[in-house]
Parts: sequence; structure tokens; C-alpha cells
Amino acid sequence: METIHVKAFGTTAPEANLEQMNIHRRTVTPKDVEIDILYCGVCHSDLHTARNDWGGSKYPVVPGHEIVGKVTRVGSEVTKFKVGDLAAVGCIVDSCQTCSSCQQDLEQYCLNGFTGTYNGKDKHLGGHTFGGYSEKVVVDEHFVLSVPENLDLAAAAPLLCAGITTWSPLRHWNVKEGSKVAVVGLGGLGHMAIKLAKGLGASVSLFSRTPGKTEDAKALGADEVIISTDEAQMNAVKGKFDLIIDTVPYVHDVNPYVATLNINGTVVLVGYLGPLEPMLHTVPLILGRKSVAGSVIGGIAETQEMLDFCGKHNIVSDIEIIKMQDINHAYERMLKSDVKYRFVIDMQSLKN
Amino acid sequence: METIHVKAFGTTAPEANLEQMNIHRRTVTPKDVEIDILYCGVCHSDLHTARNDWGGSKYPVVPGHEIVGKVTRVGSEVTKFKVGDLAAVGCIVDSCQTCSSCQQDLEQYCLNGFTGTYNGKDKHLGGHTFGGYSEKVVVDEHFVLSVPENLDLAAAAPLLCAGITTWSPLRHWNVKEGSKVAVVGLGGLGHMAIKLAKGLGASVSLFSRTPGKTEDAKALGADEVIISTDEAQMNAVKGKFDLIIDTVPYVHDVNPYVATLNINGTVVLVGYLGPLEPMLHTVPLILGRKSVAGSVIGGIAETQEMLDFCGKHNIVSDIEIIKMQDINHAYERMLKSDVKYRFVIDMQSLKN
Repeated sequence: METIHVKAFGTTAPEANLEQMNIHRRTVTPKDVEIDILYCGVCHSDLHTARNDWGGSKYPVVPGHEIVGKVTRVGSEVTKFKVGDLAAVGCIVDSCQTCSSCQQDLEQYCLNGFTGTYNGKDKHLGGHTFGGYSEKVVVDEHFVLSVPENLDLAAAAPLLCAGITTWSPLRHWNVKEGSKVAVVGLGGLGHMAIKLAKGLGASVSLFSRTPGKTEDAKALGADEVIISTDEAQMNAVKGKFDLIIDTVPYVHDVNPYVATLNINGTVVLVGYLGPLEPMLHTVPLILGRKSVAGSVIGGIAETQEMLDFCGKHNIVSDIEIIKMQDINHAYERMLKSDVKYRFVIDMQSLKN
Repeated sequence: METIHVKAFGTTAPEANLEQMNIHRRTVTPKDVEIDILYCGVCHSDLHTARNDWGGSKYPVVPGHEIVGKVTRVGSEVTKFKVGDLAAVGCIVDSCQTCSSCQQDLEQYCLNGFTGTYNGKDKHLGGHTFGGYSEKVVVDEHFVLSVPENLDLAAAAPLLCAGITTWSPLRHWNVKEGSKVAVVGLGGLGHMAIKLAKGLGASVSLFSRTPGKTEDAKALGADEVIISTDEAQMNAVKGKFDLIIDTVPYVHDVNPYVATLNINGTVVLVGYLGPLEPMLHTVPLILGRKSVAGSVIGGIAETQEMLDFCGKHNIVSDIEIIKMQDINHAYERMLKSDVKYRFVIDMQSLKN
């Protein structure tokens, strides 16, 4: 298969810094779209994969799955895009498209495993896929999204992961005008959860361990901030919420949040991968028909729905723009939560 | 308030046997129905409350919340029942009827706390309520159910707790023709879950730890029995079920059942009260949008719906009839799971 060379930024080992390298992209097949990447958001998964924190990373790792850019080439059968269009790619660049999940537009739950935008199995070139820290990307049009023209393009990039990861549970659990939603954790995901839930007409509360985030959360649209270490504040919201989006990425006690759910309420975990410790208690679940659930990113149709919704409501991420060459420093700052709320790489810096 | 004396069977202390005693019932108020109890099912909760296993038992304890009988008196405002009607009472004899749960026919989740049929707070006479191990019971007609005439009356008694406890999650999680349901545990609840899920048109599997129950489960309507200790059998049903009703009343590992859920599937716990140990793992929840939930009994309207459904499909419990005087021995046998699948007391034995 014919390929093109593009510049990228990646790492060759878990301990190594990211540095400039060359990678191949396939030339467009009839269904492909080639995108000149203008901005790429920086997700925690980028860092975890680069450093092999979850095991199984394949090197070199070229991270990046919050990709926005301009279409520079389209295959002969492409119908959704033309050269010059704004386009975006999220966490998924391929799936079987035949299983029951794919048939229901739930590519994120593809029973044969979706192809991640990076570190996935590359069905075209062999080896593994390379992400958005690069000049260009070539993707089957089914997995390419349209970006509303009115959005700030750099600030729209994080919608492709942080946005859809919180949008999908909000929609699946039917959040609407008047719903009572709470968000646990105010990072990349949490700040999007507040904006999107608010956009859907919900009243939105933020659980935070420290009072320091109150002003920021309210500026993002939160109606109230509950200090989760304050017993009186926690008691005051007992039985209140229809849905809680828990974005915290490390082990933490979920039981106090279950107590704040209304009858039929659900805590959806989107951040923490591991055993629930302290142990989840069943009595509050049983006596209130409550649920603890999980959710991962979202399907392609749903991602387009979210982008269109954001276009209509002018919702984007709060970002700090960096150069590609500053990525290693940005990772260090991310680990200290020193970003409001998402780094976005201006990919022009890689091209210069 | 005027009262009547009735014979009952109860216990005065956690370590004491149940024995005959006299209790008071209120005379009917305008909205009350007085029922001559013909049969009363024996639930595990009866035993746990008699022995104060959950703490907070008030003595004397007169258990029994699977009550069927005949109406012997009605208050002046009663419209649903007349003398001579078959009638039933389940786990709930009162609730606030004004909170958002009660307004939605979810009396089991009454935000002010429903009144249990026994060991609940008696709003009429003070003290606590006494259950169905007695000659008569007097209950507000809102909490009295009609029993289809075609059902075997003794075998219908367990529908009032074991039946509704499994019916409610089947309905809430929308089990219908073609749904794939699994049941964990083959006791009073489990055998009803099989019958009711089958009645709703689902394919039904039973998880069992030992092969000995296969024939029994199939006789009840199960399509297959999966030996949960057999890795190959567990792998064969990975990702299969839409809903799993887990009736096991003691601590057990829920993670292997989560693995057998389909995308969007739910494990509903109806039996075990306590912390989930081993710890519940979030990765399968997140990667399959799966849920772990709880559910308790059911609302009054839903209980009537279940009884009508059972009448239509001629579904009753498999029972062993005992005399009131044999209750202590029956409790010992229940602890050894030596009953297929529910003891029902012929209350004539108390009256003689």
C-alpha cells in the first residue's frame, strides 16, 4: 500500500520524552479522508499510553485523539466531505461495522473491538495506529466528524474525547430540562460535563473536595458546589440527583455519592479504572433502586450530535494552547492538575 | 381506638422459639379492610426479623408478609373490596402517599419510609405492626390486593413477596419477548424469577454452583443452567444477558456475572445486603456501559399487575404447606435451603 511520510511527535519507550519523528500514513483509499491537523487536544490517556501506565503500549506511541483540521484529500467514494471542509477525529478510527453494537451506532462498544486512534491495530498498514500529534491523518469517512463553523476550532478539539465522554452518559440516562445532575471532579472531563449538562437544561452541581474551585465551577455554569468533605453539605443533598457523572480518575469512595442519588438515580463512572474501594454497599442501591454504571466515550453518530449541539449552544472547552515542542512539560503540569482545563496543541508548531 | 383480639404466632426474644400469643388488631376505620387469613408464606425476612439478624427488631415479633385470605369486614368508604372477596397483603401496609415516590406508585421507595407489614411503626395503635402469622389482619384498602380466583390460593401467597421482588426489576428493566435473562440462586426468589421471566417471553438461564439443580430449574421453565464454577460454561455465556436477577442473600463475587452481561446490561441485586466483596471492578462496567443496581419488593399497583399477570398465565409458587405449629422446624429447614421453594402456613392450624 502506498504511503506518505508525515512529521509526528511520539515516544519510543515508557521512560523517554516525546520527540519529533517521522511516520507513515496511507494514501487515501476510496472511502478515506485526509486531514491536515490544525489542533490536537491533550488527554490524560495520551500520557498514560505514552508511559505504558495501563500496560500493553506499542512503541513508538504517537498520542492524540482530539483532532481537528481541514480536509486536504478525499477518496473517490467519499460523500460526506470535500477538500477544504473542517473535520474532526476522536478516539475511534475503525470498527467492524457489522456487530450488534456497531449496527446500533455504538462503535465504542464494538464487540470485535474498535480501532483506537492511536495504539490500535492498523488494519491497512499493519502495526499500530498513530494519533493526532502529527501533521496529517487519514481516516475512513464513517469515523470523521463535521465541525460547526462557528466554533473556536482550537477549543473544539477537546469535544472529541472530553466532550463525548460526558455527553454520552448525559444522553443515555436521558438528562433533560429540569434534571438534577452532579459532577464529581473538575478537570478536562468534569468541566465539559458541567457545560453540556447545563446546555441540556439540567441543574448542575459540582462535588469538590476543596472550596477553592467554587468560583471556577460557577463560571462554567454550575448552580452549586458541594464540598464532599463537609458532612452537613453532603447531608443537605441526600437523595437529590438523577445522575452523577464521576470523572475522578483514581480510586475513591463512591458510597457517599450514591447517598446523594434520588430514587432510580445512577452514578456513572467515566474516569476510574479499577476495583471499587472502599467496597460498594448494596443497601442504598436496593432501597432506592439506584445503579452504579460505567460509560466510555461515545458512538460516531452521537459524537456528531454532540458537535452539532455545541455549535448550536456555542459550547467549547476552556483551553490553554501550547506548542508541540512543549508537550513533555505539559504532561508534568497535567499530573499536577495545573491546567484549566485542557491543553490543546497548535499543530502549526510541528510544521514549522 | 377500639381493637379486637386475635390469635397469632410470634416470638418475644431473638433466641426464643415462636409460640402462640394474642395480639390486637384495630377495628376497621372507614378505609380499612379486615381479612381472615387463610394462608401465609414464610419468607427469609421473617426468620431474620424474629432473630434480630439485621438489628432493630421490636418484640414481640409476629412475622408474615405473604398473606392471602377472605375479606370479612370493610369500612364505610371502601370501594375496591366487599365481604367474601379474596384479598392479599404483601410487605407494605402503609406509606405517606404524598411524597414523589408514592405519587409515582413506588410506595416501596416512600421517602418518608413505608410501614412494613410487621415490625413497622403502627400509625393507628402505636407500637409496631404484626404480620400474617395470625388469624386476621386489618389494612387500608390502598394496600390490599385482589387475588385472581383461578389461582391456587396457598401457592399464590408467596407472590406477595418473592413474586413481586423479582417481578419489579423484570418490569423496570423492560424484560419482554426475546430478552435474555439470567437468575442467580434457586430459592424462593430465584424460582419465581424463572417463572415470571419465562412468562414475559424471555429466554431464561439459571446460574448455579452445583449441577444438582439442573433438572429442577428446567422443570420450572429455565432454558439452560450454567454452572458458575465451570470456567468453560461461564466463558460460553460472556456478553449474553440483558438482565441478571441476583437473588443470593449472602456475600458473593458479582464480577463473574457482570462479565456475562451484554452491552447496556444490568445485574440487579435483590437478596444481598452488605458491601460488595470481592470488590466490584469498574473496567467491565465502563467498557460495556453495564450497571450494577438494586431493587426492593415493588409498588402496590405493580403488585396488582403481577397478580393479574400470574392469574392470566397461571403462575404460582412451588410450595410445601405446613401447620403454624411447625414454624420453628421450618425455619431450621429454610436455613439449610431444604424447601422447594417456599413454605406456606395453612392458617386453619392456628384457628383450631
